Amino acid sequence: MTLLALTGGVGGAKLALGFAKVLPPEDVVFVVNTGDDFEHLGLHISPDVDTLTYTLAEVANPVAGWGRKDETWRFMDALERFGGETWFRLGDADLALHLHRRTLLDAGRSLTDATNEIASRLGVNHTILPMSDHPVRTRVVTPDGPLAFQHYFVRDRCEPKAVGFEFAGAETASLNPAIPFESLTAIVICPSNPFVSVDPILAVNGMRDALLATGAPIVAVSPIVGGRAIKGPTAKMMRELGIPTTTEAVAKHYAGLVTHFVIDKVDECARAEVAALGMETATLQTVMTTLDHRTQLARSILELIR
Amino acid sequence: MTLLALTGGVGGAKLALGFAKVLPPEDVVFVVNTGDDFEHLGLHISPDVDTLTYTLAEVANPVAGWGRKDETWRFMDALERFGGETWFRLGDADLALHLHRRTLLDAGRSLTDATNEIASRLGVNHTILPMSDHPVRTRVVTPDGPLAFQHYFVRDRCEPKAVGFEFAGAETASLNPAIPFESLTAIVICPSNPFVSVDPILAVNGMRDALLATGAPIVAVSPIVGGRAIKGPTAKMMRELGIPTTTEAVAKHYAGLVTHFVIDKVDECARAEVAALGMETATLQTVMTTLDHRTQLARSILELIR
Repeated sequence: MTLLALTGGVGGAKLALGFAKVLPPEDVVFVVNTGDDFEHLGLHISPDVDTLTYTLAEVANPVAGWGRKDETWRFMDALERFGGETWFRLGDADLALHLHRRTLLDAGRSLTDATNEIASRLGVNHTILPMSDHPVRTRVVTPDGPLAFQHYFVRDRCEPKAVGFEFAGAETASLNPAIPFESLTAIVICPSNPFVSVDPILAVNGMRDALLATGAPIVAVSPIVGGRAIKGPTAKMMRELGIPTTTEAVAKHYAGLVTHFVIDKVDECARAEVAALGMETATLQTVMTTLDHRTQLARSILELIR
Repeated sequence: MTLLALTGGVGGAKLALGFAKVLPPEDVVFVVNTGDDFEHLGLHISPDVDTLTYTLAEVANPVAGWGRKDETWRFMDALERFGGETWFRLGDADLALHLHRRTLLDAGRSLTDATNEIASRLGVNHTILPMSDHPVRTRVVTPDGPLAFQHYFVRDRCEPKAVGFEFAGAETASLNPAIPFESLTAIVICPSNPFVSVDPILAVNGMRDALLATGAPIVAVSPIVGGRAIKGPTAKMMRELGIPTTTEAVAKHYAGLVTHFVIDKVDECARAEVAALGMETATLQTVMTTLDHRTQLARSILELIR
């Protein structure tokens, strides 16, 4: 089989780790959001790719949801003294990834190639593919105008009101040519933020059609459980967009694409409404606080597909 | 008075610190070799400027002769794991300087402006001027062809035989316009390597003529004491170039430019030969193992000028 898992950062990466634990590298490919990539201090920062890489390498910081565990901050402290931009935290070891990627990109290698090189150096054998090698930049539209994603997300701590989203470059970006659309058994949309983690992937020119053309089941796992987001601004964004903060609303968001929708046990009562959207539903334990939860959810989804 | 001190890295920086201790910022300007600058990991590294900056800020590593004291190496360790280039050691705190400079240069600021901004953030009030804002790149010519300076100096640990030197870009580089040639009381060539620290400065288009045109005394301090270099490859280079490793040979190297030549007490017997070159000579304690030595040598040179 070949499973294609679409994922953003922390929430999606948890399930991705589950798949990586239960499937050999040849059976699963991770396609990652690069809409929140940005240039910072002359570096190319790719937050979701890095979170997934660190997660699969099991060096991720388990608390923060970004960066490496056992990190030190000498660089950041020194940069602060220079009056440099310190709102985006770069740990001493994390910096090595960013400077090494800079070197690889400057040598003319693609983001995919750099990602693969870096992941394999960290002992990751599974394939991590940026959604595109071309720049797509998510902007959060606020009442004061659009904000570059990391400015919204990190610098401004998701405080501005989101009234919409833009994915600059998505219309002209090419799909990552390494995505094996022709041989997919199933597609899983991990429980990442639908608006700023999954939608940028789906916005890449041709992605939605290419996914649908596979004829494979498309399984989405709800990032909303019991009316709340596990982590991050999903629920806040839904409120601001005037969407109910429910798993049904997430299902509606994916209508026309998704064939199977996985909801958490606490949302059992939402099944009928989701089924009415023409999706098969499954009720599983989707909150993943331990590694066991991650592998168990991955296994349950694989059973669902088979 | 306005003193202009030409300097490279560690040896010159010691005397520069002496001057900074005994002269107020308005009385001395440091002009620094940038011939060993290079691009590395997407950063602009300016080793001599950085050594002087750290020395004047009193955060320099006193043993290594480069980098910061109390440095940590998490970045370097992580970069090694990525298979990145680790032959040029960049400490975690040192990296902040390089990334901040990258940001300033990318914003269109000159190397002079970036140097000034960085130095003042570290509490340095004296003026540090790169010899030029244009790239000049020292290459050590070896029997196998020219080597970029840092490859010769750091990566290859000065092991290749030097048969000559090239200062690529020097002929078209402009003098740093901030150098106050019109108001100089005296010029001091610090005890840096004549071939790869001082000659690149003198090679910048117009520098030699501009120095001579000031009519000010030009005082050189010998980096060779008792037939040896205090630090670095000066003596090795002299042997390879077929030049005697003596203070007289250094004086001869500077003939036609220098008016006063400072030798160490142990080289007293060289005075006559140096005087025969038309230079005034002075015998001083030039080996600077303590801060007292540095300020004392600076004071003695100032007396010599007055």
